[in-house]
Amino acid sequence: MTLNLKNFFNPKNKMSKMGEYQELKHINGLEISSVSADLYGDGRDDMCLFYFPDGSNFAAVYTTSKVTSANINWNLKIKRHFVRALFVNTKNANAFTGRKGAHGLKEVANTLAKSLTIKSAQDPKGTKDTVKITDLLFASTGVIGEEYPYVKIKNRIPELVKKIKAEQNKFVWFKAATAIMTTDTRPKLAYEECKIGNKLIKISGIAKGSGMIAPNMATMLGFIFTDASIPSVFLKSILKKVVATTFNSITVDGDTSTNDMVSIFATGKANNSKIYNVLDPKLQDFEKALHTLSLNLAKQIVADGEGAKKFITINVIGASSVNMAKNVGFSIANSPLFKTAIAGEDPNWGRIAMAIGKAGENIVAHKLKIKIGDFLVAEESSVSKTYNEKDLREYMKWDSIKIEVNLNLGSSLYTVYTCDFTNDYIDINADYRN
Amino acid sequence: MTLNLKNFFNPKNKMSKMGEYQELKHINGLEISSVSADLYGDGRDDMCLFYFPDGSNFAAVYTTSKVTSANINWNLKIKRHFVRALFVNTKNANAFTGRKGAHGLKEVANTLAKSLTIKSAQDPKGTKDTVKITDLLFASTGVIGEEYPYVKIKNRIPELVKKIKAEQNKFVWFKAATAIMTTDTRPKLAYEECKIGNKLIKISGIAKGSGMIAPNMATMLGFIFTDASIPSVFLKSILKKVVATTFNSITVDGDTSTNDMVSIFATGKANNSKIYNVLDPKLQDFEKALHTLSLNLAKQIVADGEGAKKFITINVIGASSVNMAKNVGFSIANSPLFKTAIAGEDPNWGRIAMAIGKAGENIVAHKLKIKIGDFLVAEESSVSKTYNEKDLREYMKWDSIKIEVNLNLGSSLYTVYTCDFTNDYIDINADYRN
Repeated sequence: MTLNLKNFFNPKNKMSKMGEYQELKHINGLEISSVSADLYGDGRDDMCLFYFPDGSNFAAVYTTSKVTSANINWNLKIKRHFVRALFVNTKNANAFTGRKGAHGLKEVANTLAKSLTIKSAQDPKGTKDTVKITDLLFASTGVIGEEYPYVKIKNRIPELVKKIKAEQNKFVWFKAATAIMTTDTRPKLAYEECKIGNKLIKISGIAKGSGMIAPNMATMLGFIFTDASIPSVFLKSILKKVVATTFNSITVDGDTSTNDMVSIFATGKANNSKIYNVLDPKLQDFEKALHTLSLNLAKQIVADGEGAKKFITINVIGASSVNMAKNVGFSIANSPLFKTAIAGEDPNWGRIAMAIGKAGENIVAHKLKIKIGDFLVAEESSVSKTYNEKDLREYMKWDSIKIEVNLNLGSSLYTVYTCDFTNDYIDINADYRN
Repeated sequence: MTLNLKNFFNPKNKMSKMGEYQELKHINGLEISSVSADLYGDGRDDMCLFYFPDGSNFAAVYTTSKVTSANINWNLKIKRHFVRALFVNTKNANAFTGRKGAHGLKEVANTLAKSLTIKSAQDPKGTKDTVKITDLLFASTGVIGEEYPYVKIKNRIPELVKKIKAEQNKFVWFKAATAIMTTDTRPKLAYEECKIGNKLIKISGIAKGSGMIAPNMATMLGFIFTDASIPSVFLKSILKKVVATTFNSITVDGDTSTNDMVSIFATGKANNSKIYNVLDPKLQDFEKALHTLSLNLAKQIVADGEGAKKFITINVIGASSVNMAKNVGFSIANSPLFKTAIAGEDPNWGRIAMAIGKAGENIVAHKLKIKIGDFLVAEESSVSKTYNEKDLREYMKWDSIKIEVNLNLGSSLYTVYTCDFTNDYIDINADYRN
């Protein structure tokens, strides 16, 4: 745990801005299992299965990287909108593993389909349908370029299937969220409820991510499960919209992974009235809840950024376009000089000005206003008249730092979340593979 | 000194690739002075004057940042192609200092013009022309947003002018190159000779830069002086071409400064035959020498990157365009995950693949070939058959690391130079202002 948990409940830190722990609840139509294939050599859980006995609608968004892992390539080929399971492994990304990696994944898929078919046949409530490999989705995270240990994984699948739990209490969720961790120091979980028509809808989500977190996701995995009944095409359109201002608004180090994936599964067990239109007002509450849950998970990822000691919110307002606001925000959030200044608790706003200047946007220097917390630090191309170094030094000690940049050019805005850049980041990443 | 100097002469480190020290020589028509205005509070030299008694042709390229310092704004307004002096101060960037910063700079300019006019009148060899403030160029580097200490600077100008030395030996150059340093751990100097027609031409150059070094320069100052006689418009066109593959091909942290400036001054004292055309074959040798000198200075800057322990050369070949090669090269060079792996002497080529993938270029994963040193590490979307972790671990201990990425899409190429990312970078930048 790199963030000081004591301070999580210090009111001056406004921790509600940094994501919150919530107790996750059971989602009807979902069953979970996690075991160890001993990929780390220390017996920790490293494989996790999300099983839908009666299948589930789903939607997913993937990394924008041109170098994608075997599992992302697999998922992209699944054209159907109804799946039976999602399998996740950590330690090995199965990326840049060529034909061997693709072959290994297929071996795992065959074994998993077979085991689930047997389970399904035995299940008194299940569909008894054969599970095909095209019913399966995969997520992997870990080291890139190392051989995919498919034999070790395959051998543990019978045990994984055997251990499937039909009910999720908070411990089952915690175990699953822990099984998908890599350099994460804590699991990320979020829960929301909403209504579709008169039906109560539950949404439980988990995520992992700590480094290589950049816009357009990162080595970031997000799995969201709901009992709502929503067609997959509508799920996709809502998910894309929600991700744009949640999972895609965070950055730890500007690096983007080969394995990013955020997906949502809707089992339909809540039996809400049928949705015929993505603009159906009945979906508004659901979209809002999904946004809250996604932002919560995204913030938990940033707060757990490798070596992070500070959570940083950068609000860019007054831009001519959302794109301009986004570019300026990420230019600040990804600047190593800015991030190290925050680590040093130094209100060096000159580096914010520098990062705004280098963003490549047509900003007008003398119109810029920069705030750190509630303190105006710069305006009219100069330090503000009310600048008080002592107050700012005090503010910089907080765990959660807010930066506001007003470009004074228009009315568009965008918020980026990031963390500081500390010695621990270097230590974690200097020899990550060992 | 962060780089191990012992290893500079270790042949396995191929140090010639990292820039070399050279003894700089006197340039006719140039006089130099450097003194302390005690801006650092420890008496080190922090102001430096380059004076041309008979004036000099010149050309300069500046930062692409939209937030520019007072001195850059000043220089951009100088429309003439003939100047009398360049004044440099460190410690304070005079950036984001508004009207007060511009006013302070003008005060300094007035004082300097007056002092130089008096000197000129007394000089038996000089032109005795009045020096006007529009004959002066300025460079500043240091903290952004702090009040420009123009009174301290002004007060020391008479002493600075009094100490002007008409002749430069290597010690004068060393003193000047040291006066312009900020977080640099050593001065950067380079020297080349060439011929224009039958005349020997001398070129002496100094530079500063250590952090905030990114393409399109950085807090990077480069001052190059030659006795060649070349019209300023031709100087400009040659300088721009040379900078594109030298000063603009380096990065320490991806950050770009408000104060970048590379300039060349040609005093004309070599009396070479008049140049009427920038494509004159007589200029080829000069352009080549200027390129060698600029690349040498640029490499010295990277080798002295804040906290750097490794010098990294990234050759991107087989690209469809130079732009593609450049984007891929900088995507690797600016990746914190790649840079920390190099710091940890970890041949984690998966991070190179990751950084190539996120560059936003249309690369084809299975065509990629990645080499570390002379070792092929990845091809056909997979680890290479000849991959040998032991050999690579040994190679990673070297001071100078070479990466080659073959995109196998075309014949364009670009080379980027950078350094690793260490704990020292964080320490240097966490509280830079104190």
